[in-house]
Amino acid sequence: MGIITLLTDFGTEDPYAAIMKGVILRIHPEARIVDIGHAIAAQDVLQAALTLEFAWPYFPEGTVHTVVVDPGVGSRRAIVALQAGGSKFLAPDNGVLTPVLETGAESAHRVENRDLFLQPVSRTFHGRDIFAPVAARLAAGLSFDELGPSIPPATLQRLSIPKMTFDAEGNPIGQIISIDHFGNLVTNLRWSRIRNQIPDISEKTLKFQVGSHKIDNLASTYADVEPGELLILVGSRGYLEISVCRGSARRTLQADIGTPVRVKR
Amino acid sequence: MGIITLLTDFGTEDPYAAIMKGVILRIHPEARIVDIGHAIAAQDVLQAALTLEFAWPYFPEGTVHTVVVDPGVGSRRAIVALQAGGSKFLAPDNGVLTPVLETGAESAHRVENRDLFLQPVSRTFHGRDIFAPVAARLAAGLSFDELGPSIPPATLQRLSIPKMTFDAEGNPIGQIISIDHFGNLVTNLRWSRIRNQIPDISEKTLKFQVGSHKIDNLASTYADVEPGELLILVGSRGYLEISVCRGSARRTLQADIGTPVRVKR
Amino acid sequence: MGIITLLTDFGTEDPYAAIMKGVILRIHPEARIVDIGHAIAAQDVLQAALTLEFAWPYFPEGTVHTVVVDPGVGSRRAIVALQAGGSKFLAPDNGVLTPVLETGAESAHRVENRDLFLQPVSRTFHGRDIFAPVAARLAAGLSFDELGPSIPPATLQRLSIPKMTFDAEGNPIGQIISIDHFGNLVTNLRWSRIRNQIPDISEKTLKFQVGSHKIDNLASTYADVEPGELLILVGSRGYLEISVCRGSARRTLQADIGTPVRVKR
Repeated sequence: MGIITLLTDFGTEDPYAAIMKGVILRIHPEARIVDIGHAIAAQDVLQAALTLEFAWPYFPEGTVHTVVVDPGVGSRRAIVALQAGGSKFLAPDNGVLTPVLETGAESAHRVENRDLFLQPVSRTFHGRDIFAPVAARLAAGLSFDELGPSIPPATLQRLSIPKMTFDAEGNPIGQIISIDHFGNLVTNLRWSRIRNQIPDISEKTLKFQVGSHKIDNLASTYADVEPGELLILVGSRGYLEISVCRGSARRTLQADIGTPVRVKR
Repeated sequence: MGIITLLTDFGTEDPYAAIMKGVILRIHPEARIVDIGHAIAAQDVLQAALTLEFAWPYFPEGTVHTVVVDPGVGSRRAIVALQAGGSKFLAPDNGVLTPVLETGAESAHRVENRDLFLQPVSRTFHGRDIFAPVAARLAAGLSFDELGPSIPPATLQRLSIPKMTFDAEGNPIGQIISIDHFGNLVTNLRWSRIRNQIPDISEKTLKFQVGSHKIDNLASTYADVEPGELLILVGSRGYLEISVCRGSARRTLQADIGTPVRVKR
Repeated sequence: MGIITLLTDFGTEDPYAAIMKGVILRIHPEARIVDIGHAIAAQDVLQAALTLEFAWPYFPEGTVHTVVVDPGVGSRRAIVALQAGGSKFLAPDNGVLTPVLETGAESAHRVENRDLFLQPVSRTFHGRDIFAPVAARLAAGLSFDELGPSIPPATLQRLSIPKMTFDAEGNPIGQIISIDHFGNLVTNLRWSRIRNQIPDISEKTLKFQVGSHKIDNLASTYADVEPGELLILVGSRGYLEISVCRGSARRTLQADIGTPVRVKR
């Protein structure tokens, strides 16, 4: 056994992801491979980081999460392996593991042992030549020490992921950081943190401003409003999300990633 | 072992389906998970029902078919589990199991045992918090009695699925109920039923009318006509389908779901 | 065990590929099924052949590669099974196996034993009724002799796949044969063959012409140029590819499949 997840910007028109699976199965025929997804926009390291942050905690301990969103493929950027939260991570050192690092990593290694790679290593498809064979071996139990030198996790590249802040009056300010398939607008306003910061908060009297649009009070679920109406609620990631009941908030609000979202008491 | 299928409107850009798989594998590491698909149009319960009707009979006995097309998520709509035809079904009680109920269900249960759910249960992502963990346990052999109260299958919600009828002269009338990736127009005219009803039918002399368009005689296969030509044949679901040889009948006929289809002897 | 790959033009909106998986698992519950992909353009046998050529060598020995891109479904076209390079192939006899045949096939059989098929065999969905059950049995170890008569591999249909040539001065001439998700333009100029033919070639002084567009010298990797700049390099398939660093060469060059590509020393 041994579970390997794949998260890439390869799309599904080409056989790139399938080739990674072939390479994995040649090395570790018992591996279970799960696609987290291949629809990250080309080279969008931030969206890959946010997708990984959302998904990985739901997988079994020991899973090898493999991220190949890699604008620097073939350059001198490092490939790194991380142990964190009982899971294993394999990715280019381009910041895509930032949310994992923020939860505290136990160890990090540079992946440099060429004996583990497919030969010859191409300059454009490390998913096949490096990530797949190394993920297969990690899933089969290879020690991280075999990968290459141990490095302090703190030395890894980090993305600047937009964070919620509080204005002078203590009101939370955030922005839209992700938009899903249904047109739900995911903000970086973490509800548990707002509640901690403002213990006397009343869900009933809160007001929200998304760009220039105003939304009254927090809903519990889509069914709290009529079809076509806007609502804001605590989404399944723990962040505030803006939705339209049986519709698309993206379309209704013409909002995009980066649109500011303000909370007023 | 234990096979679990997933049919949702989650799309594949977001990690929603992947998260369900992670949850399943944490509970039942040996589960085999097969995507029936994630491309149902958002909240299109009828298309999900028709897709399920087509697909499920081809899976092994004991498969747990899990449908998460769920406009009522977070509302008081029930979640139900069904045993029918040697298979297991898990879905919101919104009519999506109508075609399964029509074949005769052996038993139904409401899914209410919160000990089986991920905690806390979100109000927007029951796929992760309820459907995935319950599917995993059903695939691992959990008794349906553990889910919640047994209910008569006849009390479940039903969709009104458009059915073929016969006009005063005994000619079949139906409509387009589904359109596939190739642009084939699937009708609700079940060929075996037409043959039973009209035992002296001659395949050679039948005429068809799709909207305002006329098609002569029934073809056996695409190769019976020239590329670009329209044809009507008994499709792989047992229903009459309208196709264009190496083309798209949807484009050629500008037809859509609901377009009437008439058969004349 | 036993790995089965699927390569089709079915798309992922409909349950066609899922139904094939259900049929496979009913016959061979231990089969491992990997999607090479379902996004081949409808009935584009050439792109399917090129995709298969790229992907199959990375899978384990004994894998059953199943290709259902089949404009002739229901006609008298044969279905064939091939043994080549330690792998097994199952496809309509329409030329889609041409690249496999070019590497040398060990044996070929016509698939005619109706006892192996789902009954009744439809005229439109042989993926379900023939390919899936036969692939399942081959993966489970069925002898090729059980499929139907042995035939000489040389009698199989072949596609005319555009090949690189050399002009009167010995300069390589090719064309774009495939375009990937990133907009990379894959040519049929095999770098190893160019090097063999022109041993004194200098990578530094080569010039390239793509349609009417000129590109200077060969890059090693995307990072050799600035974002937005064009480059040409030896891609992961061994063919010259035209790319734009962090962009799309397809968009930049408005090039398409068939656009000529010339190499000048």
